Amino acid sequence: MFFHRQELQHTAKPDAPDAVYARKLQEVLGGQYGEITIAMQYQFQAWNMHIPGKYRDLVFGIGAEEMGHVEMLAIMIAQLLEKSPLGITEDAVQDDPVVAAIVGGTDVQQAIVAGAGARPVDSNGNPWQGSYITASGNLLADFTANANGEMQGRLQAARLFHMTDDSGVRDLLSFLIARDTMHQNQWIAAIEELKADGAEELPVPSNFPLAEEKREVSYQYLNFSDGAAAADGRWASGPTPDGKGEFSYHDGPTTTAPMPAPTHPDVRFYGTTEVPNVVEKVAGKVQDALNKE
Amino acid sequence: MFFHRQELQHTAKPDAPDAVYARKLQEVLGGQYGEITIAMQYQFQAWNMHIPGKYRDLVFGIGAEEMGHVEMLAIMIAQLLEKSPLGITEDAVQDDPVVAAIVGGTDVQQAIVAGAGARPVDSNGNPWQGSYITASGNLLADFTANANGEMQGRLQAARLFHMTDDSGVRDLLSFLIARDTMHQNQWIAAIEELKADGAEELPVPSNFPLAEEKREVSYQYLNFSDGAAAADGRWASGPTPDGKGEFSYHDGPTTTAPMPAPTHPDVRFYGTTEVPNVVEKVAGKVQDALNKE
Amino acid sequence: MFFHRQELQHTAKPDAPDAVYARKLQEVLGGQYGEITIAMQYQFQAWNMHIPGKYRDLVFGIGAEEMGHVEMLAIMIAQLLEKSPLGITEDAVQDDPVVAAIVGGTDVQQAIVAGAGARPVDSNGNPWQGSYITASGNLLADFTANANGEMQGRLQAARLFHMTDDSGVRDLLSFLIARDTMHQNQWIAAIEELKADGAEELPVPSNFPLAEEKREVSYQYLNFSDGAAAADGRWASGPTPDGKGEFSYHDGPTTTAPMPAPTHPDVRFYGTTEVPNVVEKVAGKVQDALNKE
Amino acid sequence: MFFHRQELQHTAKPDAPDAVYARKLQEVLGGQYGEITIAMQYQFQAWNMHIPGKYRDLVFGIGAEEMGHVEMLAIMIAQLLEKSPLGITEDAVQDDPVVAAIVGGTDVQQAIVAGAGARPVDSNGNPWQGSYITASGNLLADFTANANGEMQGRLQAARLFHMTDDSGVRDLLSFLIARDTMHQNQWIAAIEELKADGAEELPVPSNFPLAEEKREVSYQYLNFSDGAAAADGRWASGPTPDGKGEFSYHDGPTTTAPMPAPTHPDVRFYGTTEVPNVVEKVAGKVQDALNKE
Amino acid sequence: MFFHRQELQHTAKPDAPDAVYARKLQEVLGGQYGEITIAMQYQFQAWNMHIPGKYRDLVFGIGAEEMGHVEMLAIMIAQLLEKSPLGITEDAVQDDPVVAAIVGGTDVQQAIVAGAGARPVDSNGNPWQGSYITASGNLLADFTANANGEMQGRLQAARLFHMTDDSGVRDLLSFLIARDTMHQNQWIAAIEELKADGAEELPVPSNFPLAEEKREVSYQYLNFSDGAAAADGRWASGPTPDGKGEFSYHDGPTTTAPMPAPTHPDVRFYGTTEVPNVVEKVAGKVQDALNKE
Amino acid sequence: MFFHRQELQHTAKPDAPDAVYARKLQEVLGGQYGEITIAMQYQFQAWNMHIPGKYRDLVFGIGAEEMGHVEMLAIMIAQLLEKSPLGITEDAVQDDPVVAAIVGGTDVQQAIVAGAGARPVDSNGNPWQGSYITASGNLLADFTANANGEMQGRLQAARLFHMTDDSGVRDLLSFLIARDTMHQNQWIAAIEELKADGAEELPVPSNFPLAEEKREVSYQYLNFSDGAAAADGRWASGPTPDGKGEFSYHDGPTTTAPMPAPTHPDVRFYGTTEVPNVVEKVAGKVQDALNKE
Repeated sequence: MFFHRQELQHTAKPDAPDAVYARKLQEVLGGQYGEITIAMQYQFQAWNMHIPGKYRDLVFGIGAEEMGHVEMLAIMIAQLLEKSPLGITEDAVQDDPVVAAIVGGTDVQQAIVAGAGARPVDSNGNPWQGSYITASGNLLADFTANANGEMQGRLQAARLFHMTDDSGVRDLLSFLIARDTMHQNQWIAAIEELKADGAEELPVPSNFPLAEEKREVSYQYLNFSDGAAAADGRWASGPTPDGKGEFSYHDGPTTTAPMPAPTHPDVRFYGTTEVPNVVEKVAGKVQDALNKE
Repeated sequence: MFFHRQELQHTAKPDAPDAVYARKLQEVLGGQYGEITIAMQYQFQAWNMHIPGKYRDLVFGIGAEEMGHVEMLAIMIAQLLEKSPLGITEDAVQDDPVVAAIVGGTDVQQAIVAGAGARPVDSNGNPWQGSYITASGNLLADFTANANGEMQGRLQAARLFHMTDDSGVRDLLSFLIARDTMHQNQWIAAIEELKADGAEELPVPSNFPLAEEKREVSYQYLNFSDGAAAADGRWASGPTPDGKGEFSYHDGPTTTAPMPAPTHPDVRFYGTTEVPNVVEKVAGKVQDALNKE
Repeated sequence: MFFHRQELQHTAKPDAPDAVYARKLQEVLGGQYGEITIAMQYQFQAWNMHIPGKYRDLVFGIGAEEMGHVEMLAIMIAQLLEKSPLGITEDAVQDDPVVAAIVGGTDVQQAIVAGAGARPVDSNGNPWQGSYITASGNLLADFTANANGEMQGRLQAARLFHMTDDSGVRDLLSFLIARDTMHQNQWIAAIEELKADGAEELPVPSNFPLAEEKREVSYQYLNFSDGAAAADGRWASGPTPDGKGEFSYHDGPTTTAPMPAPTHPDVRFYGTTEVPNVVEKVAGKVQDALNKE
Repeated sequence: MFFHRQELQHTAKPDAPDAVYARKLQEVLGGQYGEITIAMQYQFQAWNMHIPGKYRDLVFGIGAEEMGHVEMLAIMIAQLLEKSPLGITEDAVQDDPVVAAIVGGTDVQQAIVAGAGARPVDSNGNPWQGSYITASGNLLADFTANANGEMQGRLQAARLFHMTDDSGVRDLLSFLIARDTMHQNQWIAAIEELKADGAEELPVPSNFPLAEEKREVSYQYLNFSDGAAAADGRWASGPTPDGKGEFSYHDGPTTTAPMPAPTHPDVRFYGTTEVPNVVEKVAGKVQDALNKE
Repeated sequence: MFFHRQELQHTAKPDAPDAVYARKLQEVLGGQYGEITIAMQYQFQAWNMHIPGKYRDLVFGIGAEEMGHVEMLAIMIAQLLEKSPLGITEDAVQDDPVVAAIVGGTDVQQAIVAGAGARPVDSNGNPWQGSYITASGNLLADFTANANGEMQGRLQAARLFHMTDDSGVRDLLSFLIARDTMHQNQWIAAIEELKADGAEELPVPSNFPLAEEKREVSYQYLNFSDGAAAADGRWASGPTPDGKGEFSYHDGPTTTAPMPAPTHPDVRFYGTTEVPNVVEKVAGKVQDALNKE
Repeated sequence: MFFHRQELQHTAKPDAPDAVYARKLQEVLGGQYGEITIAMQYQFQAWNMHIPGKYRDLVFGIGAEEMGHVEMLAIMIAQLLEKSPLGITEDAVQDDPVVAAIVGGTDVQQAIVAGAGARPVDSNGNPWQGSYITASGNLLADFTANANGEMQGRLQAARLFHMTDDSGVRDLLSFLIARDTMHQNQWIAAIEELKADGAEELPVPSNFPLAEEKREVSYQYLNFSDGAAAADGRWASGPTPDGKGEFSYHDGPTTTAPMPAPTHPDVRFYGTTEVPNVVEKVAGKVQDALNKE
């Protein structure tokens, strides 16, 4: 169960309205790596988790915080839109380049659809969607997804920090950026703990029998482009991070197989097949099939 | 530039057609973590990269290999569909439970739309989409995304391995699983190399001035649920993985702020505001605005 | 801010696993009128609201409850999937029609992607999306949307009730159906209260000056089909519900206007225009424009 | 069957081209509550209806009118785009702020894709989609959806009215707003008629046996937030609109249930489970399962 | 304006309900090449057309017919669903393989969402979307798109014809297939007429000055794969269909250019750049920029 | 298999950065008819093809070239974004109309998400999706789709050519436009060859037995609008392009059928049916059904 309190975790108050920036801030609310994604991802991981205790408590514990981050951003956006000009005519534009700029820089649906309100969309107006989240049931994979989510999120917040000089907006972003610092550290710590507990190891999934994979290509770097510098990387020689092999470097594939012959499905799919006179031949077979039907 | 060779990296030939499995295999072709995602992600990272040399060569080198994995899966799917029954009537169903099972288990668009062919969709028929990929320009974030992609991909391939006993399909999956082992190791090695090179460190982005974030909450674990076990984790005490702080554990938020007052946009947005008699009041203001327009 | 408690509002425990039903239940979790929609809709209405007090408290108060409904359904689905068969071969199918049925009736992504877990998608696997919600800032419109949401939701839950005889699942649905009864009544009561308060009235938006609309067609029923029975309805004669007019019935349009002439944009859009010899004429104009550029 | 006449229901002719406004007008053509939604919604309700006579004639009668509204808007948009500048260079921008404004305010796909034409998308360029419509077969639910659709539609048209001073555009919007007035009244009258006929009543679906729902929570207002003002609303005490109960007000849930234990699916899903040494344990079980396969 | 008549162009009555087939038939109703696409495509082409007379009358004339095809399919689907079983328990499945088959083969949203009705979605449940249509304003391009639409549509209808032996369904498909025959012929005739009128020619757009394209590569077949047989095709030698050149065949590219250097955007985007010590260097520059802000 | 070479087919270097144009160029990279569509379409056609030899070699041969076109556009876009301003405050806007214009004209996700990089989206930010491609297995249909794809693509590139005066961008577009000229010619030549080979003919699919279609309406032009000029077209009289009939012109439908009666599904779908007293009647039947369950 979830309970709401009509307070925020941090002040969310802009110095002044800025409809252009309100659009940009939608990215970290409703974008691929926005707070809705993060909140939903942690909660679905919690609901699907197969293990009680510290890992489930962790995901539950942070999921509800992230819902509060969604709220702070939505409320900030509504305030940024408060004095949003309703409509703009060419006359207004001719008099005022600021107005001109605003014409195009805003999310017009924030006005027409939400009446100067926040929306569950990204900064280009694409609706948030369920396929942004990851909750596979394998914690080493999912915590890596979470670490990535917090990295992309902090990166976007940092970029947005430089796109405004409103001290109220920057104040909120500073808070969110700090929480992303925590959460990056947290997921990396949780990955370490999973390994220390003997719960998971590399490669994911660690329980798939290695004997069932083609081990001869498990540690080969295969270069399918013509840049030679990748041979100098840590991934091209030396022991592998999973502790189970040695990297080797190869130019191009080390294995090859012939292209299989084209398929020949039922003639009633009407795919084009070998010529000549395929029209007549196939038509005959179709008629036979129809007669039998 | 890309060049194609009419050979495969590994044999892709099923023992027998299996239209039900052909649908499932679509997941690792056109799903969120399918090979199209992986191939596109690496290529966009290469095209957007700001640094020449080993990292760019690495991403170019593997991107083209992944395009070949897309190809192997598409060709495998086409063969699995080769004897796909075209249509099924209730009579057929009554005689044969295998046919009955196939009715529902197949992707009907593989038949109706592609004529027994592979499609750029996932195992539920959702079209592949550009929002599956990640290419931010920050390599520590993106290589973490890549590691996650290879983990989720190998996990799904391992599950699919157990969903068939066709030795040809399993043979291909064994190869792809082995390559995923390589690529998981590779991205983790590349993350280590980025740090060793002094190119990136935690938290991402490492160059955002820490003084600009609210450092007092940067290492606090805040528990917004009521499970107590998360206090025992590595993320609740001790030094943080970024080497810049100490974790602390707190039940609930350590900061709070009042909910801002509701916004009051232009009356011509027709949002509902304070009562009573708001209808008359707003109507009057709208009329004034119209008179002025 | 949101706080989570590791309890449910009602028991969510099936008698037995049922992977086919787990797919169906996704509809009321992640579908157009599923609980994610309802929870998100109420919260965005709260964040965008322009009026403090009882209406905002109402929307905040119920929004958090709905998040808990999302949770109960997700957890129910995870349990329904617990003994989900991993893979099915034709041999198994031949022996057991139940297995055959399950082949096609399940959401294969619940297995391949979520490892036997719930997902933010509908019963056909379409991801939940932000465009399902409505939060316009006008409370009479939005509360009508909410009433509709609770009606569609209770309707779907009632249908799902009849699609299982698992007493645990039915027990949870009985609870959710009762809450939908409350929420339908609640939104209709809130609509009455809005009118009683003088905050809104019909038509929405009530503050748009009626003098600005074409009043002559404001109460005409125009029949653009050839069924005559609609003339007998309440909407074809008598006073209108907004108390401002009288319905009248008309066969076909009461107004008409000529189709405007086709448009002629810049020739450099290369649209096809009047013949003959348009190729030469347009090519000449394009060349002129290029020369000027 | 549908028949087209090359006339419009009302004049659709702008005073002057305005490419920026052409983009905004897309919202009521191809948005969530645009005319395509309304037209499609009524037609699918008609095609799926289970009852002949006045209700079906009503939905058929208005569905075709709405197709004509789609047409008026599309033709208006094409004219607004007629003098749309093709391309804009920085030189042009420096000379003319109007041009500058237009750069960003237009829908660039109207130019690049449609050659200065209307498109089936909303004002942010999101394609219209089938999931916008509602046609459940239950008329009380669907007519409520229709009332909401006409409310949101009139609200958006009213906002758009204030975003231009083009008298031709305003003239068309005045007509559409008047028709929305009619259609709001019509659906509310139809809801009354459904009840008067004894066809449907509250709660929807009215035929689901009330004995099957948990009646003890059917009229409880449960406050999951901390705002107290909702206790003063019409929905917190007194008789319920369905005439079958009395509202009561409660702070927080009146029922509770323990969180179920985590699920334990087949080990071959490779979900993370209880530690320690889960890697070895699961690997052993997987190997056993493989041996049996 | 559109007018509806409560008649169909052809009988749409199945011999018997068939919920599994009802799902398949959704493809030609709401799929990429379903009738909604065709109807919408022709109407948007009409609304955006720049030329009065026969071509516009043609597109208007057929657009309304296609709306009637949408209707026939929707009504057919509703009837196919009429006896659709509501729910299926494992007991029922064990007794009856037909029931088992139906479990998985149906579109569960037709039941849960539409109450045994048709929906604007394809056979996998993907909602119809505006991006399926093509209306560019260039008639040679668009009529080619139309010819393709009618080809794909007839192909899918032919496949669906073989997937049922219900004589009522086949009767309707026979009618639709015949109309597709007409419309394929019609668009090819219209393409010929466009050329005969001198309105358009190849390549599209025919008015773009050929001098502005790199004519040296305009007729070269460049083989980027290793199959040699393409050299034997009509496209590898001889005069080109546009009458303006001669095909030639080349193995691989005839031109090449070096890969440009990586880009270096503003450091405040936090992209990874040249090592070593990039963390310190970039952090310094960011701090400088912050100081200046 | 695919191999990458770190060279381009043609120079891709702008004279100067232009973030506004970078957004527009996304259309031909990631739009409905962008290069990703073309590359994916040809490759899926190759993988699904049922016929070896010249046609398969053709599709393989050009598919890899198109991947290189994706690359040139992505790299061009990254360079156009190189000096993209990070953020813009109202002060900056007031000083400089060029800056004002840029505010709105850019794709903000290219900045916030990709850090000044290209993305797999169109010019309105809609993600590329798998449903853009066509690969049906029938070559006459698919080559017509390909011809259309190259026509729409060249049309969009020509429009984009006029939207910039950057000689570097125009140079690349000139090259791509020339290749589109080739590919239009190529597919039309391939269609001729298919017919000459006797592999396919009109109508598609040519093998469906004509006796199974309603031949009486196969060549009738039916005018469902009131424009008379379509009677003058090539499609209204004379021999049909498939060589199998004669066109005829008809005002309105030549066939008609009564609208079927409304359907009556199971009462437990709770659809509204005949009045009066339907509530009681249906409730009784539902209770009976529940008692039996």
